[in-house]
Amino acid sequence: MPAAVGIFPNLDKPRAPELARELVAWLAERGVAAVCPPEAAGRVEGAEPLPPARWGGRVAFAVVLGGDGTLLKAARALAPGGVPMLGVNLGHLGFLTEVEARALFDYLPSALAGDYRVDERAMLAAAVLVDGRPRERLLALNDVVVSVAPYARLGMLAVWVSGSLLGRYPADGVIVATPTGSTAYSLAAGGPIVAPDLDVLVVTPVCPHTFYARPTVISKEDSVRVRLERSPEGAVVTADGQERRRLAPGEEVVVAVAGEVARLIRGPGWDFFRVLRRKLSEGPREEEGEER
Amino acid sequence: MPAAVGIFPNLDKPRAPELARELVAWLAERGVAAVCPPEAAGRVEGAEPLPPARWGGRVAFAVVLGGDGTLLKAARALAPGGVPMLGVNLGHLGFLTEVEARALFDYLPSALAGDYRVDERAMLAAAVLVDGRPRERLLALNDVVVSVAPYARLGMLAVWVSGSLLGRYPADGVIVATPTGSTAYSLAAGGPIVAPDLDVLVVTPVCPHTFYARPTVISKEDSVRVRLERSPEGAVVTADGQERRRLAPGEEVVVAVAGEVARLIRGPGWDFFRVLRRKLSEGPREEEGEER
Amino acid sequence: MPAAVGIFPNLDKPRAPELARELVAWLAERGVAAVCPPEAAGRVEGAEPLPPARWGGRVAFAVVLGGDGTLLKAARALAPGGVPMLGVNLGHLGFLTEVEARALFDYLPSALAGDYRVDERAMLAAAVLVDGRPRERLLALNDVVVSVAPYARLGMLAVWVSGSLLGRYPADGVIVATPTGSTAYSLAAGGPIVAPDLDVLVVTPVCPHTFYARPTVISKEDSVRVRLERSPEGAVVTADGQERRRLAPGEEVVVAVAGEVARLIRGPGWDFFRVLRRKLSEGPREEEGEER
Amino acid sequence: MPAAVGIFPNLDKPRAPELARELVAWLAERGVAAVCPPEAAGRVEGAEPLPPARWGGRVAFAVVLGGDGTLLKAARALAPGGVPMLGVNLGHLGFLTEVEARALFDYLPSALAGDYRVDERAMLAAAVLVDGRPRERLLALNDVVVSVAPYARLGMLAVWVSGSLLGRYPADGVIVATPTGSTAYSLAAGGPIVAPDLDVLVVTPVCPHTFYARPTVISKEDSVRVRLERSPEGAVVTADGQERRRLAPGEEVVVAVAGEVARLIRGPGWDFFRVLRRKLSEGPREEEGEER
Repeated sequence: MPAAVGIFPNLDKPRAPELARELVAWLAERGVAAVCPPEAAGRVEGAEPLPPARWGGRVAFAVVLGGDGTLLKAARALAPGGVPMLGVNLGHLGFLTEVEARALFDYLPSALAGDYRVDERAMLAAAVLVDGRPRERLLALNDVVVSVAPYARLGMLAVWVSGSLLGRYPADGVIVATPTGSTAYSLAAGGPIVAPDLDVLVVTPVCPHTFYARPTVISKEDSVRVRLERSPEGAVVTADGQERRRLAPGEEVVVAVAGEVARLIRGPGWDFFRVLRRKLSEGPREEEGEER
Repeated sequence: MPAAVGIFPNLDKPRAPELARELVAWLAERGVAAVCPPEAAGRVEGAEPLPPARWGGRVAFAVVLGGDGTLLKAARALAPGGVPMLGVNLGHLGFLTEVEARALFDYLPSALAGDYRVDERAMLAAAVLVDGRPRERLLALNDVVVSVAPYARLGMLAVWVSGSLLGRYPADGVIVATPTGSTAYSLAAGGPIVAPDLDVLVVTPVCPHTFYARPTVISKEDSVRVRLERSPEGAVVTADGQERRRLAPGEEVVVAVAGEVARLIRGPGWDFFRVLRRKLSEGPREEEGEER
Repeated sequence: MPAAVGIFPNLDKPRAPELARELVAWLAERGVAAVCPPEAAGRVEGAEPLPPARWGGRVAFAVVLGGDGTLLKAARALAPGGVPMLGVNLGHLGFLTEVEARALFDYLPSALAGDYRVDERAMLAAAVLVDGRPRERLLALNDVVVSVAPYARLGMLAVWVSGSLLGRYPADGVIVATPTGSTAYSLAAGGPIVAPDLDVLVVTPVCPHTFYARPTVISKEDSVRVRLERSPEGAVVTADGQERRRLAPGEEVVVAVAGEVARLIRGPGWDFFRVLRRKLSEGPREEEGEER
Repeated sequence: MPAAVGIFPNLDKPRAPELARELVAWLAERGVAAVCPPEAAGRVEGAEPLPPARWGGRVAFAVVLGGDGTLLKAARALAPGGVPMLGVNLGHLGFLTEVEARALFDYLPSALAGDYRVDERAMLAAAVLVDGRPRERLLALNDVVVSVAPYARLGMLAVWVSGSLLGRYPADGVIVATPTGSTAYSLAAGGPIVAPDLDVLVVTPVCPHTFYARPTVISKEDSVRVRLERSPEGAVVTADGQERRRLAPGEEVVVAVAGEVARLIRGPGWDFFRVLRRKLSEGPREEEGEER
């Protein structure tokens, strides 16, 4: 038995707090301590508050209660410490989550026994260059997106791949996606699906006003540099659609694979193509939002 | 000879002021007065300043110096007064412009003689509904776009066509385009090309996160209602990418064909499909911006 | 009560013959005669064999038992005689069918009483030109497609719209679709959805090897001429994917709206956008075939 | 100086025979023998006829005179013997060709001196399974395509990736492309561009009638199995659009990376993204055919 397990709940999901408390109790019965992020402590009684940045080494793994969006957030917080994550689905079928809420307590014993494999997923690090020097750093599991204000329609982007000009075109933005992110925003913008374990990235322009700008698959070894050649109202760079920073004219963004990896706990049966078929053939998911 | 001609210049184009002054002189030699928008008066000596809203009845037609973007702006200002517009191209080949700058003075004599046909183009009127009552009105020749902040990725739009639900989906936005606008932003978002004289509109979702949201051609008689079902950071409605208004949660936009039409002056040789082939097969237009 | 009703069954559907016989009996109880195509007579006892081309004037309407594919076939046979068609769905939800098999006998009394509206759908006529003279004529409700042998990849098509060159490009083929056909093959090739009552056609290239070849919406008044500029192994022209003719080099196809219309019986509740939402959001339809 | 160089001309190109003869003379002056395929011997005087399958070991490299299409053909013939190929462009800019015809004799001295690098490109091997046993083998540099007769529109394909079902859908066909082939037919069918040195394949459905069938990037280690679940008129499997075999119902195709690689001679300046930008932004190439 491990000494402790982390609980990373999305408290906006109605069932998350209760499930978190059940989990604390279930773990306690087995002599396993629970930790949770300090901001969740008030609603997850019995778990020790601890910033996720310090979970590495302390917890055997983290149980992430929410959906794919919660897992993206957890990944950015937990990847630096190398903490494996068990995604528990409180909503729709996800690409990242592993187990449905109702099946959690059947799944946990083998996870506690260490009987799982880790599905390592590449992450992206984006650096904002100010006067050519890297300033800020954003970490992402799905994608880094440079978005021009879409209503202005005056944006002009230039994109380089490891120093070679990929293109210079008017567009609403450009997406750099990991294989994990290929089924998220990049797919909506016309990008391909990429099997999760490939050593590639996808560069997908968003609504380009030229036909020759097409989704392009590049090596994981490449870096992508994006410059706003023109954008009267500036632009925004986002990581997983969750963290963002405004870009001023003349600033550039360089995106490359990060040193950190997201570590997803998988049982024996997980098959990417099966999840893909189910996700893509689902009907309208009108209430879904977080998972974008 | 008509008594007066309007001059509508895009003063951001380097050659526009000089060409406007040449035009004033050329017209004066033929006893034709020139009027221009008050904000251009300082750089177009000899033209009478007059707000474009009052050009109807006063000028035979307006010479629009710029590109397709300038024509979009002119159309919103001049369509209410029914003023025909002669688009003079100061940049790249346009869909709306009729004549290259260098050919203007060869073209004008027959235009002054009234020897032209008018290519009438449908426009859109968008009303913002606040508590169900129309407040603001936007006029557009190309398109009305409801854009969710793209970096938030939490937008959920519902779209009705004359009362029938077309769809409810997560997306970056939705475009309602006229045939004229079908070759602009809607095309970049995956919409079809529509011959300019058809009595239809195109509804094109922008980066929808569902596969079943597809560009849809509807009747010019239809109205399109767009509701932001969810958009934590609000949204923006734009007309031709040039005028805009923020949308608060709970506000809706209704788009329908406007009473106004844009009146484009055409000589005998104009052929939409020929312009289309040339525009679409052009190489990268890296310096182009206005024409979006 | 009408004197007679036609029965147009797809005998490949397992349930069709039995349902046809039930229908004959149900009609007989009400004093209404049944007619059926001669080739179906052996399996639809009690119905009078009569070629569909002669049903006009003889039957009040035709009950079409099958799916959208059966309705396409029925439309080509019955449109010349102006026979209204009631599409009965023996498989998946269709765009053209009106009623599920299990609901047929609840639906029929009001249909027999004439209490329905007719949804008139434009059809296409394709003429093959040999040495510039029209030879063969094909009739279609969904689409006329000129297909180059896709494995040869040497096809080059030229397409004119009412005499204006739309484009000349290497492609696997070109689709001319009615609004009705916009949700069929044209959609698979990237075309837009078109509301069924619009006076337009859609020209959609199939896998064009140039980016500027895009789906284009034209007027119902236009004719479309397709010439095989190069196609070493010839080409095939098809109507609704069901009738076909080989094209030899130098032959051309001209497609225009036909004089015939397909007449679909609709009850009060039918809403195109509702059917569309349901069809498009359905999951995989692995067993489906006819409906393409 | 090497003992011999191969000449692989496309004799359908008007300039190819003359250039081949010039090349023979130019090589002879330098004491280098020339060999050519037996079928070209009559038009390339002075070159020794030798089947390309036996060029390995005999020639230092092969000069391929034609375009990308000729290089595809040469690759299938020469890859088994490991012969490097120098692609000489007799038509439009190609993705595979290295040098324009007019620059050939400036380029050759350093090539003869061995001063070049070899750009190795993965190839595909397709096996047709009859009763589960591999029968025929096709080799391809761009792509292996299983095409259903497009006019029949009754095709239903099932595709497995290394044993996992990718999908089962109605479509005109499915393309398995190498990175090299990603800019050919797969691009026309909506696939992404893939940098040429990546260890991936692309599976692109052709006109699928389901929205969830999307281009998918898989590992070069994966095999792809395609089964015709339904295809009343059979299907055809093609290699690079140049070799083909009919498929009978019940037969399957398995595609995997071949042991052979195509070896392209490159000088120092070659940059994939620069060629890409030029190719994609070119205007219409109406006379082009072979390069598909």
